[in-house]
Amino acid sequence: MAEQVKLLGHWASAFNCRVEIALKWKGIEYEFIQQDLQNKSPLLLKCNPIHKKIPVLLHNGKPICESLVILEYIDETWKGNPIFPEDPHERAIARFWANFIDEKCLPAIKKACFTKDDKGIEETIELLKTLEAQLNDKKFFGGDSVGLVDIVANLIGYWLGVIQEAVGVEVLTKEKFPRLYKWIEEYVSCSVIKEHLPPREKLLAFAKANYNNQ
Amino acid sequence: MAEQVKLLGHWASAFNCRVEIALKWKGIEYEFIQQDLQNKSPLLLKCNPIHKKIPVLLHNGKPICESLVILEYIDETWKGNPIFPEDPHERAIARFWANFIDEKCLPAIKKACFTKDDKGIEETIELLKTLEAQLNDKKFFGGDSVGLVDIVANLIGYWLGVIQEAVGVEVLTKEKFPRLYKWIEEYVSCSVIKEHLPPREKLLAFAKANYNNQ
Repeated sequence: MAEQVKLLGHWASAFNCRVEIALKWKGIEYEFIQQDLQNKSPLLLKCNPIHKKIPVLLHNGKPICESLVILEYIDETWKGNPIFPEDPHERAIARFWANFIDEKCLPAIKKACFTKDDKGIEETIELLKTLEAQLNDKKFFGGDSVGLVDIVANLIGYWLGVIQEAVGVEVLTKEKFPRLYKWIEEYVSCSVIKEHLPPREKLLAFAKANYNNQ
Repeated sequence: MAEQVKLLGHWASAFNCRVEIALKWKGIEYEFIQQDLQNKSPLLLKCNPIHKKIPVLLHNGKPICESLVILEYIDETWKGNPIFPEDPHERAIARFWANFIDEKCLPAIKKACFTKDDKGIEETIELLKTLEAQLNDKKFFGGDSVGLVDIVANLIGYWLGVIQEAVGVEVLTKEKFPRLYKWIEEYVSCSVIKEHLPPREKLLAFAKANYNNQ
């Protein structure tokens, strides 16, 4: 039986984009099935009955949910062009920073951008300082090449800039975060990444339409 | 150089206990260094400068933080007696449920037990129903033997019973959750687990002293 890879996703989601970039990175052919998040499909509800969220990867009919879990699955299933470091300690460090982005940065960014709460803005700036320090003088979070943390951090490297412009909040600036900015430039210039990020103007229009009333 | 494994932890922490049980499960010798959480040691702050939390595993001087990341590290570093399933899809399912416990159940349990909030109590009961359904008729979440989800779920299998008794909230009862109760009995009877859970009376006294004023 030919291998069947499907992705239930949404073009404007940073979490969906993580999975698409990982699949492209590995050179895996897949069918993308755009989901209507206002009117969830029976397939999405069947595949992710607990969280009812995209992205869901369907590999030969078996669903895998949650973007970080999907990235682990992709790296374990298709071994070429690894996303995770090989060394267990470096893998642990990568998982730590991926969780830091999802568990710390994401809630703070939501508070800063969607409620425009001063404490949320301060908190986001502090967290970005921590990320900037972690990046240090490395080209990518993964060192010389893109790895797990870079793919997860597209939330900051691409989405945050668009969302702050859409909602009129400023947390990430070139002056305050020169190293993060340098990383963003490297990251979005990387060919696999560049080709698979949603177009900026389209994403900005989506963000203006959807994130201003949250 | 002889391998050096140290654990910075706290005897009453369910997160610490996950790591201790995983190390015992693997038969790894380690030095336990009890931490004073009111007065954090320079060693803890140096090893986990971001979250400043236990548990931290120190393996040959290298720190690994966050209990789920540590469990991945332990399973990747010492291969015998695996904690994670071998099959990538089963691994993904195990990671999904481990995250479900930490990201969904834990905040709801805190709300239910520490603020005694009615919505928190209802939400916890709903989440426990989901876990009960996932357990189904399996002996362990891992199937016939203890695995990642069982070790992570000690929060529910051991700590929740003690905490609800300490604070006078009832969410987990044998009548409502017969399958979870059967699992708890199997889990705490398992020799490696039984020997390394903190004594119930001592944990109850700790919970009464520490969780009633939250």
